[in-house]
Amino acid sequence: MRRLGEIALIAEYLAPLAAAEGSFGLKDDAALLTGLPSSGLVVTADAIVAGVHFFEDDDPADVAYKALAVNVSDLAAKAAKPLGYLMTLAPSEAPTEDWARRLSSGLARAQAAFGISLFGGDTVTARGAWWMSITAFGEAPERGLVPRPGAKAGDFLYVSGTLGDAALGLKLRLRTLEADLADEEAQFLRRRYLYPEPRLALRAVLSAHASAAMDISDGLALDLSRMCAASGVSAEVSVPQVPLSQAAKRALTSKPEEIQTILSGGDDYEILAAVPAAKALVFEKMSVEAGVLVTRIGTVVGGSEPPEFLDRNGDPFAVASGFEHFKV
Amino acid sequence: MRRLGEIALIAEYLAPLAAAEGSFGLKDDAALLTGLPSSGLVVTADAIVAGVHFFEDDDPADVAYKALAVNVSDLAAKAAKPLGYLMTLAPSEAPTEDWARRLSSGLARAQAAFGISLFGGDTVTARGAWWMSITAFGEAPERGLVPRPGAKAGDFLYVSGTLGDAALGLKLRLRTLEADLADEEAQFLRRRYLYPEPRLALRAVLSAHASAAMDISDGLALDLSRMCAASGVSAEVSVPQVPLSQAAKRALTSKPEEIQTILSGGDDYEILAAVPAAKALVFEKMSVEAGVLVTRIGTVVGGSEPPEFLDRNGDPFAVASGFEHFKV
Repeated sequence: MRRLGEIALIAEYLAPLAAAEGSFGLKDDAALLTGLPSSGLVVTADAIVAGVHFFEDDDPADVAYKALAVNVSDLAAKAAKPLGYLMTLAPSEAPTEDWARRLSSGLARAQAAFGISLFGGDTVTARGAWWMSITAFGEAPERGLVPRPGAKAGDFLYVSGTLGDAALGLKLRLRTLEADLADEEAQFLRRRYLYPEPRLALRAVLSAHASAAMDISDGLALDLSRMCAASGVSAEVSVPQVPLSQAAKRALTSKPEEIQTILSGGDDYEILAAVPAAKALVFEKMSVEAGVLVTRIGTVVGGSEPPEFLDRNGDPFAVASGFEHFKV
Repeated sequence: MRRLGEIALIAEYLAPLAAAEGSFGLKDDAALLTGLPSSGLVVTADAIVAGVHFFEDDDPADVAYKALAVNVSDLAAKAAKPLGYLMTLAPSEAPTEDWARRLSSGLARAQAAFGISLFGGDTVTARGAWWMSITAFGEAPERGLVPRPGAKAGDFLYVSGTLGDAALGLKLRLRTLEADLADEEAQFLRRRYLYPEPRLALRAVLSAHASAAMDISDGLALDLSRMCAASGVSAEVSVPQVPLSQAAKRALTSKPEEIQTILSGGDDYEILAAVPAAKALVFEKMSVEAGVLVTRIGTVVGGSEPPEFLDRNGDPFAVASGFEHFKV
């Protein structure tokens, strides 16, 4: 099978993804962004590493899709409109044509789904597992960024979609979840791990009504504690209110302890938002109109303690902390 | 020795580098760039990998400095003014405090030298050698970008500084260069490998007078062939005109075959520019005023053949091609 050099990889498989004028067909060292929004540019970076964020033998189309999706998820949480991205791609050996075609097709699919295009980047050789690092930029909303640190005591806490599916899907792939699941339920969970859905449809709602927002990538427990710490507040979350898919509910029926996975497993890429109580109704209504399920899971409260999780009786419920790279 | 978790690394060693308002002290997933230049934003990405771009046991201060310098060099080649950067940092294990302090100090030094600051990024665990990927952005010059593909037949070809020092310095470190050098000459070459000098002082000159420009990162031979291919032209280079440092000249005295290293070794991060003949004098004068040595090395000619290198008699001089990642 033909293996590609760096120049062929860029010319044949990456340049077709770079349609925007300022990307110069990837023939230059740098790209030019013009017609910049007066509201500002939101920029974010997220990398994924084989063996850490995905499996070595995963289809590069899926890996590439997810790499772009997790970056766009950060833009969505800031209510920013995706514009473009730069990608540093590091295969651990000269890629085959098949690998390059799959990678390129996954990126093309994600680009079409999220309305974003490739502007430039770099290709290097990884020493060890292959990885890619993406920097994405988007148009800031007219009324300013939805900050992470804006949560205030009294705000309602909302999450989009359902939580824990991806973390359960990962455990299925790792064969560390032995719940009693139908085939299509297992498939659903695995798919939720591979294909995050950046909640771009919530941009207008978040921009208009959220006092703070972020995407949940490292588990609700850790990410909520980050939002609270950044905002100088605490929170109470009602565990029974956390929205679950049918598949996740089914997994809990046979393995109730998996609620820990759901609350702290990560890879959700759903939105966590704090919304002033007075705006809660309109926030819910606009979200429904945008076609995205949002669910109130708790309340922001004063104080500097870590967020508290409560069971159905209102008693404290101990939750493991979320994912941290190179934790010590 | 204390090892740092991800949260401590960011809060204690990276957040102090993020002074700009829109970086939110690295407490958010995304940064906000406001007051964007009407001329546009130049964006570029370059990654470096231990064992590929630097040695595993290099001081992280030097590695970090170089990582930022090579990105700023791309901005300089486009005549763009550095504004900010995002960094994805991938240590292969939980870093020690000493490692983090060195890394941070190298970045701080580069930030001060180049007038750029940290806006955000990501931290992940590398599986294998450690690496970092940087995306830098700068203000485009008012009169538009200096393109790589703009070289025209008849243009003079210039390079800044001296070529080959870094490639010779690398060979010294690899102990594959056995030239007869004084200690300070060897030290000079090694230092040129570690500390590229982005030619920001040439921004105004390039913007005003160059028809094409790029920085030389993969060797003059390969990078000139890229400029020519992008521009649909060819070129003639007079090898004796290529500017050399005293140390490089000395190396050539005992090892004349090292001219190949000089012409195709890479890591120069000097500027290669095509300048219309009619503007050559003012280009040279302005460069001198900017304090940067520029030297005419040849001429752009019509045709689609690879650039030709000529010896002092005007006869063809065979040059090895430059560095390509995962070449096949």
